[in-house]
Amino acid sequence: MTVDDLIRRPGAWLLTDAGPDTEIAVSARIRLARNLRQAAFPSWAGEEECVRILNRLRPAVESLPFLDGAWGWEMSELDPVDREILCERHLISSELASRNRGSAVVLRSDESLSVMINEEDHLRLQVMRPGANLMGLWEEIDAFDTALSELVPYAFSPELGYLTACPSNVGTGLRASVMVHLPALRLMREVEPVVKGLNKIGLAVRGIGGEGTEAMGNMFQVSNQMTLGEGEIDLIRRLEAVVQELTTHERNARARLQEKHPARLRDFVGRAFGILMQAHILNSQEALDLLSALRLGIEMDLVRSMGGGELNRLMQSILPGHLQRQARRDLPVEDRDQLRAMMVRERLKEAGAEPAF
Amino acid sequence: MTVDDLIRRPGAWLLTDAGPDTEIAVSARIRLARNLRQAAFPSWAGEEECVRILNRLRPAVESLPFLDGAWGWEMSELDPVDREILCERHLISSELASRNRGSAVVLRSDESLSVMINEEDHLRLQVMRPGANLMGLWEEIDAFDTALSELVPYAFSPELGYLTACPSNVGTGLRASVMVHLPALRLMREVEPVVKGLNKIGLAVRGIGGEGTEAMGNMFQVSNQMTLGEGEIDLIRRLEAVVQELTTHERNARARLQEKHPARLRDFVGRAFGILMQAHILNSQEALDLLSALRLGIEMDLVRSMGGGELNRLMQSILPGHLQRQARRDLPVEDRDQLRAMMVRERLKEAGAEPAF
Repeated sequence: MTVDDLIRRPGAWLLTDAGPDTEIAVSARIRLARNLRQAAFPSWAGEEECVRILNRLRPAVESLPFLDGAWGWEMSELDPVDREILCERHLISSELASRNRGSAVVLRSDESLSVMINEEDHLRLQVMRPGANLMGLWEEIDAFDTALSELVPYAFSPELGYLTACPSNVGTGLRASVMVHLPALRLMREVEPVVKGLNKIGLAVRGIGGEGTEAMGNMFQVSNQMTLGEGEIDLIRRLEAVVQELTTHERNARARLQEKHPARLRDFVGRAFGILMQAHILNSQEALDLLSALRLGIEMDLVRSMGGGELNRLMQSILPGHLQRQARRDLPVEDRDQLRAMMVRERLKEAGAEPAF
Repeated sequence: MTVDDLIRRPGAWLLTDAGPDTEIAVSARIRLARNLRQAAFPSWAGEEECVRILNRLRPAVESLPFLDGAWGWEMSELDPVDREILCERHLISSELASRNRGSAVVLRSDESLSVMINEEDHLRLQVMRPGANLMGLWEEIDAFDTALSELVPYAFSPELGYLTACPSNVGTGLRASVMVHLPALRLMREVEPVVKGLNKIGLAVRGIGGEGTEAMGNMFQVSNQMTLGEGEIDLIRRLEAVVQELTTHERNARARLQEKHPARLRDFVGRAFGILMQAHILNSQEALDLLSALRLGIEMDLVRSMGGGELNRLMQSILPGHLQRQARRDLPVEDRDQLRAMMVRERLKEAGAEPAF
């Protein structure tokens, strides 16, 4: 069981063919930060203590029916490209990717449920699915968390709630996020005011790679900033409402483009197609931005002969880790950019993709 | 006889199919500034005096066999689009384009010889041809100038030479320039040091539209800055040598690209082709830059089924004046950019142009 077994299929954050439900709200995630009572946090514990904690937690996690057919790796088993692939699939954080002995990830074979052990906290439970059904995710992770809490004593304070390594997670320990694809708002230069508005109501907006990353491919991750003072259900309902509103905004922007700026829309989609078909050097950022425009074209019936699902698979396969694993070797950046361009050209030709205008 | 009769064919600065001689040194021009003795310079003379001067000079100019089948217009006969077209064909300056009654342009039907009357000076004689045979141009314009001087008394000082409205032209009154196409040097980021070197030896490097303009389509106009202290023949030999050297530089840069950076070269040409085939909004600057890359591709056998001559015609026809005249109406900028994109797409499709890699 290796990381290679994963890369043949799309990750859970991009799992299905694009449909009305996942066109704009691409995928949702909830993660819970939990810690063992009376044990040092991973960054304070030495390697040996981390190993002891891991040996205690991993069997407990794997014993739960939620993780049927659990897969998992200790970080020390994974080479740099493996780690990059798991990051690109949103299964581990870059924080966990930098750790070695004493840290691990365990996941359900469909990748929708995963547990990082000895990342910043002893446990990071994560559930992730296409679409924006946060309430469904909440019920799932809550049940998993409850079952796990019966096997493992959590660090919990009646006043503060769940105790965590970083004070920003204390309380619910919950971070809920939705990945939204907003190409039309971006094209109309309306993303910035939206981001400012969301910040004002306590929501963070980040790039595709989470904290500290730039938006790539017009994908934005909207999540809660606070884990204290608001119950889980309230937070999730609020985030769901915001995502609903963002979706409406984006749909309106698409309709406005179609109606009032048809040349601008065709230019945006057409240029992306033209460059993707003819470029010989493509970095990830540019490739994702162009594929985002193509995705908009597919969703607005402006691009023929390519489905959203095919595009999702392509988007994933051009990420640096996935790309290198398919090439079966580590590649310097220039070679990666050339291979990426070649792969994109070939896939688009195979699919017979072309503008429908 | 209208300006419309001109636009069906390429201008003299882009006249022929690209061949080894005109691939890099696209075209050359020499112009001479001359003034009538004992008459006020055009900017000092009132409109009536300009009309009198024009009525004296135009018949003299048109009587010379050099201008067989002379065409010409008083500026007051021309609408704004006509003027723009003549500027785009390098037949008049924007200075002349801003004048009205009392100013005119006269030209040989093949556009290679032209005379502006009452621009900044009473007379601006110009000869222009593809390639960089400046000495040939010099012999032609010198003969024309000599013949004209027998009909018209020039303002001439034995100490200073030809007197002109602006002191920067006093002396020979000669400005020789060569339009060079340097896409490979530009791509390799080597144009700037070249420009600095040329400035140091008294040569100016400007954009396609002459003084004060930016480089478009990687076309640069190299010309002398001084008109005092150096004989015409010396200057022309020096400029010819410089153009020879620039041509060698550019050829070397192309060979280096081909050999050491083939992906970068294909990316440059391929992207240009992709965007030109798929864009729906194209301004002149971007269109010329992309067509320049395509031209490089044609010249390096990287683009099939399109000749340099076809490309030259396309380059000219997308300039704002030519574009509007073909559309038979004045167009707002947005409509022009859409029409330009459509025209480019259609012509490339008609020609069956495609990358040969």
